[in-house]
Amino acid sequence: MAAAVPKKEDLSNLSFVLNKPNDVVFEERPKPSLSDPTRVLVAVNYTGICGSDVHYWVHGAIGHFVVKDPMVLGHESSGTVVEVGALVKDLRPGDRVALEPGYPCRRCAACRAGKYNLCPDMVFAATPPYHGTLTGLWTAPSDFCYRLPDSVSLEEGALIEPLAVAVHMVKQADVRPGQSVVVMGAGPVGLLCAAVARAYGATTIVSVDIVQSKLDFARGFCSTHAYLSQRVAPEDNAAAIKELAGIPAGADAVIDATGAEPSIQASLHLVRMGGTYVQGGMGKSDINFPIMAFCLKEVTARGSFRYGPGDYELAIELVRTGKVDVKKLVSGVVNFENAEEAFQKVKGGEVIKILIAGPNEKKR
Amino acid sequence: MAAAVPKKEDLSNLSFVLNKPNDVVFEERPKPSLSDPTRVLVAVNYTGICGSDVHYWVHGAIGHFVVKDPMVLGHESSGTVVEVGALVKDLRPGDRVALEPGYPCRRCAACRAGKYNLCPDMVFAATPPYHGTLTGLWTAPSDFCYRLPDSVSLEEGALIEPLAVAVHMVKQADVRPGQSVVVMGAGPVGLLCAAVARAYGATTIVSVDIVQSKLDFARGFCSTHAYLSQRVAPEDNAAAIKELAGIPAGADAVIDATGAEPSIQASLHLVRMGGTYVQGGMGKSDINFPIMAFCLKEVTARGSFRYGPGDYELAIELVRTGKVDVKKLVSGVVNFENAEEAFQKVKGGEVIKILIAGPNEKKR
Amino acid sequence: MAAAVPKKEDLSNLSFVLNKPNDVVFEERPKPSLSDPTRVLVAVNYTGICGSDVHYWVHGAIGHFVVKDPMVLGHESSGTVVEVGALVKDLRPGDRVALEPGYPCRRCAACRAGKYNLCPDMVFAATPPYHGTLTGLWTAPSDFCYRLPDSVSLEEGALIEPLAVAVHMVKQADVRPGQSVVVMGAGPVGLLCAAVARAYGATTIVSVDIVQSKLDFARGFCSTHAYLSQRVAPEDNAAAIKELAGIPAGADAVIDATGAEPSIQASLHLVRMGGTYVQGGMGKSDINFPIMAFCLKEVTARGSFRYGPGDYELAIELVRTGKVDVKKLVSGVVNFENAEEAFQKVKGGEVIKILIAGPNEKKR
Amino acid sequence: MAAAVPKKEDLSNLSFVLNKPNDVVFEERPKPSLSDPTRVLVAVNYTGICGSDVHYWVHGAIGHFVVKDPMVLGHESSGTVVEVGALVKDLRPGDRVALEPGYPCRRCAACRAGKYNLCPDMVFAATPPYHGTLTGLWTAPSDFCYRLPDSVSLEEGALIEPLAVAVHMVKQADVRPGQSVVVMGAGPVGLLCAAVARAYGATTIVSVDIVQSKLDFARGFCSTHAYLSQRVAPEDNAAAIKELAGIPAGADAVIDATGAEPSIQASLHLVRMGGTYVQGGMGKSDINFPIMAFCLKEVTARGSFRYGPGDYELAIELVRTGKVDVKKLVSGVVNFENAEEAFQKVKGGEVIKILIAGPNEKKR
Repeated sequence: MAAAVPKKEDLSNLSFVLNKPNDVVFEERPKPSLSDPTRVLVAVNYTGICGSDVHYWVHGAIGHFVVKDPMVLGHESSGTVVEVGALVKDLRPGDRVALEPGYPCRRCAACRAGKYNLCPDMVFAATPPYHGTLTGLWTAPSDFCYRLPDSVSLEEGALIEPLAVAVHMVKQADVRPGQSVVVMGAGPVGLLCAAVARAYGATTIVSVDIVQSKLDFARGFCSTHAYLSQRVAPEDNAAAIKELAGIPAGADAVIDATGAEPSIQASLHLVRMGGTYVQGGMGKSDINFPIMAFCLKEVTARGSFRYGPGDYELAIELVRTGKVDVKKLVSGVVNFENAEEAFQKVKGGEVIKILIAGPNEKKR
Repeated sequence: MAAAVPKKEDLSNLSFVLNKPNDVVFEERPKPSLSDPTRVLVAVNYTGICGSDVHYWVHGAIGHFVVKDPMVLGHESSGTVVEVGALVKDLRPGDRVALEPGYPCRRCAACRAGKYNLCPDMVFAATPPYHGTLTGLWTAPSDFCYRLPDSVSLEEGALIEPLAVAVHMVKQADVRPGQSVVVMGAGPVGLLCAAVARAYGATTIVSVDIVQSKLDFARGFCSTHAYLSQRVAPEDNAAAIKELAGIPAGADAVIDATGAEPSIQASLHLVRMGGTYVQGGMGKSDINFPIMAFCLKEVTARGSFRYGPGDYELAIELVRTGKVDVKKLVSGVVNFENAEEAFQKVKGGEVIKILIAGPNEKKR
Repeated sequence: MAAAVPKKEDLSNLSFVLNKPNDVVFEERPKPSLSDPTRVLVAVNYTGICGSDVHYWVHGAIGHFVVKDPMVLGHESSGTVVEVGALVKDLRPGDRVALEPGYPCRRCAACRAGKYNLCPDMVFAATPPYHGTLTGLWTAPSDFCYRLPDSVSLEEGALIEPLAVAVHMVKQADVRPGQSVVVMGAGPVGLLCAAVARAYGATTIVSVDIVQSKLDFARGFCSTHAYLSQRVAPEDNAAAIKELAGIPAGADAVIDATGAEPSIQASLHLVRMGGTYVQGGMGKSDINFPIMAFCLKEVTARGSFRYGPGDYELAIELVRTGKVDVKKLVSGVVNFENAEEAFQKVKGGEVIKILIAGPNEKKR
Repeated sequence: MAAAVPKKEDLSNLSFVLNKPNDVVFEERPKPSLSDPTRVLVAVNYTGICGSDVHYWVHGAIGHFVVKDPMVLGHESSGTVVEVGALVKDLRPGDRVALEPGYPCRRCAACRAGKYNLCPDMVFAATPPYHGTLTGLWTAPSDFCYRLPDSVSLEEGALIEPLAVAVHMVKQADVRPGQSVVVMGAGPVGLLCAAVARAYGATTIVSVDIVQSKLDFARGFCSTHAYLSQRVAPEDNAAAIKELAGIPAGADAVIDATGAEPSIQASLHLVRMGGTYVQGGMGKSDINFPIMAFCLKEVTARGSFRYGPGDYELAIELVRTGKVDVKKLVSGVVNFENAEEAFQKVKGGEVIKILIAGPNEKKR
């Protein structure tokens, strides 16, 4: 289903720009041109807000990524194709797409080996020094724009990015049908991990969080069990979760989507002998870690960073087939000019996921 | 090659027994009988001393394994078959064998799935409450006694156990030909890991230790590079090792055979994006761990515990084919009555590996 | 849920015995005793009929397995525990169980490596010279008797065996969520493969057969598409299936559950570059095979034989969670004395799956 | 080690062109220009002749690849960098390189997933309609030109291509240390497979051929055993090989480098239960295949096609470290103007591998 084709000349390129911490402006920026024949020009329809966007907004940096020059925020977007380069065959103007916001070099060892998310030369939207997608017009390599099936809306399209993050984490966890999976954290990515784990056939899915309302949501969304983390030793939280979920030998897989030290510690005590633990959430650089539990149980542990080959495709297929209902996560949609208020709501923890309509969308 | 068959009635069952920390005695214990038709009776020829033996001797416990009743020490042994049970087809009296000292239940999920080292009902020699192999006669399931090829001596046979530990660690590290492997620690297991990594085709093999003499040995034994750990930040040791070995992007695999906190920290800074880190050495339960380095590089980390299917077979094949020359590790052989002195030498760090001849061996 | 405990003295051991091709008798055989403390005694409740049972009945042999002495038929059974050996902890009298009918040696390289289905010393029910389960009382190692959850009936329990066959085939095919899977054959095992593939997250599932009524059933049971094989070149059937299912590049996985030459040939033309093909169905020893299609597409091909570690457990979990509704396959249940008629119906292709009640079941 | 930098203006672009079957000419073709800033211009030093080159020369086609227009032959080459594009960082003029002759699209699912050898849009040298490397000047993406270490000669560099083919086949066979590997065929690729299998740690390596002299070479080159195929049933050749190599249970891996029907049939009878068989050799499209042996033994079978990520790098590392001595395969080097005679020698089976010096090389 191709929508009516927007014309470049009719489109604004109004952008939401971070100048420095807590200083954002709206700015009409020059419209991009299609110099590379393998790229496409896309009008951005909807953009979700990620914790990293909020972090840049508040702190101006994440680790060694520092915002030095003004930077357009946003990287969870859907859009509509406006123009295609001369060599693009798979897309045409009017196509509705989910935008994968990172473009690897395609030439390094990681790219060639099928792990492009580990490319050292990645150009990633809204990671300094690269601009993001809270803008009117966006250009991208055509193969990083994924056509949405007719049954998937553009609002859902903006959720494909966080869903792809969750898909990648669950792949790293190597979840198999019939398994038990514990997901630490019931924010957007944690919830999506639980939902993807279910789509992978896990039959015991435990969400863990420190906020009861998130757990209530998780139970309705996808999880078979929910556990409110207590201020006790990680071993004790682990034991309580095993008891609750009926998995005395421990979980087949534990996915940490928090980055919080107590959560990671509990993860290692929770996972069964020979099980799998994945670190997806980000937090402190160094933490106290139960290394002997990890060693003696022969745990397989993997980090998870962004998404790689096939992750966007699977995320879209999970939405198309109704296996993951991302619409339930959307707390609301705001007009582009209300972007800053949306950031404040996310910062305040008031919403699960809020979408910002592109500057060319009809006002609500 | 079957040796002359020793007769049970001619053999002593003198044993080296730990009563409590630092209190060992020699005791003639009752000769075991072959009640189970799938087991064999073996006269123990040589036994190496492992760090865990010394730890029990000094401390009377390792973690939650506590020596409550007198326990025969030792678990790195070779022997000669004396009798075989009625159903044993693959061995016959006189066969020279390496003894795998842990007997799993064969019935639990781990055993059935091919991970018997994770069996919760493992009966393991010299792990309380089970007696060890510093004794005259030993019985074992026949399939845990591995016939030695003619070209492999009984002294070498006593080294198969630590070599199997190293084989398992290198398997966990998934080392491939042409790769770079860093092994933290140049004690017996670390040295054997480096040698096994070479047999797996690794072409850059770096040994790291805090003792120069061990590194000197490593260079002659198997490693392409050796690095003396400095008292600097783990990132700095990691950077120096990359520089030394010509692996600016980091090591394909890092194996920690120390259990020491600074070594583990450096390991995570050393491993390349998408590389593998294996924890084999044992130490403190909890350490400060660079969790974000692990996460963002999508490291695959695995614990390694003892050995499993195929590890003994491969260890023997590596010795048979000359790929690992375990003889070089043997600092000397002592008579059975000198067992305690041997323990003292190992405790003092004076030797790499010392063997104790069985009580039925000719005196030297 | 433990049923009322039947008593051995009250139970018949009437058995359905194949003397020679097409010559079966009912015979009251001696009641087995529990000599091994790790085994259990089970009263058989229901037994399904497999194509191999029918083949032995008609031909007296499958390949080099020849029925020389009278042999009890049957191996797809559920039962109720009557007695347990002294060392059995996980089962107790009255427990309702699915019977895994093959008992490996637990000691060979295959068993130890987690592939006990490849054990050369397998003792398998109703494979000569071993008796089968169409009998009143059966003994088995306790870990090959799987307790049924309360919500799973004994009739469903008799379907766990063929479902485990399908689970193993789908595991061999390494099916992942979002993939396209074509299953050649819509008999019981083919249907179950399609259902298991769906449980593994496949979103395009094509059943292929030469009988339209089977395809109609498949569509209602689990498949997204069904294709009636035509008498054309295998390439043409393959092309038609790709067209039908909307998979122009070919299927991610193709599972042959027929053993028929044209079906296998089409499988290789159907599978995509780098895809997977599994041979589960049995037929002629040698067939004409498109070896260059296999080679140039870098297909991964695997045979599938019976079931191994974890397959029964997963089969039961799939039934418990409603992911595979095996009840739909049961065309009917007959009393034990009508076993031969049941065999005739299966031979005639009149039914999908028919169950034979054990001799101690109430008459219908 | 960078050689003296040749200058483009001093270099001939004389090429060896196939007009139609058995009709070749030498032709001075226009010198290529570096329009793409990520490519390099290379002066070709040496080129080996592959069976496919000879096949095009004799038949004008391989399968559906048909030479319609005149085509430069050759694709196994080393060269010296003459110019580099503006964006090329890793190479500079004078660098000596091995040329990987196929350039994938980098954008399709196969490329992104790390299997670029399966790219449907591959541009491959001397596969119609693309010209080959028997020419003076060649341009290529810089990441498909691999710098040779100082200790590797340009003659050896021309052998990297067939060695990479062998590396890929052995990777597909998943060979592990201590295993037994049988390689069917002792031509250049079969010999290199055997050598690579040894580098992977295989300790029993059997070469099989129908020509005794090739087997004699194999024994000296890398194999532990050599078997002259007899005109008997494939089961009988398989049994004789098992006997010869002392592998009664069969080979862990069998690699067919012949494409010949009897060889493939024997391969399936040779491989052990649960073992691996790889088809690398090309021959008839369809053959009689022992499908039930494949199925019942749960063989893992894989096709192998060209080479993919990491294969060239490993091939070079194997030569650098002396693990594979490719020089032994070189029967001789001829001047460019003698290219046709070289083709005749290869066709006649007189040589293992003959190299053709580039048109800018000094005459011999």
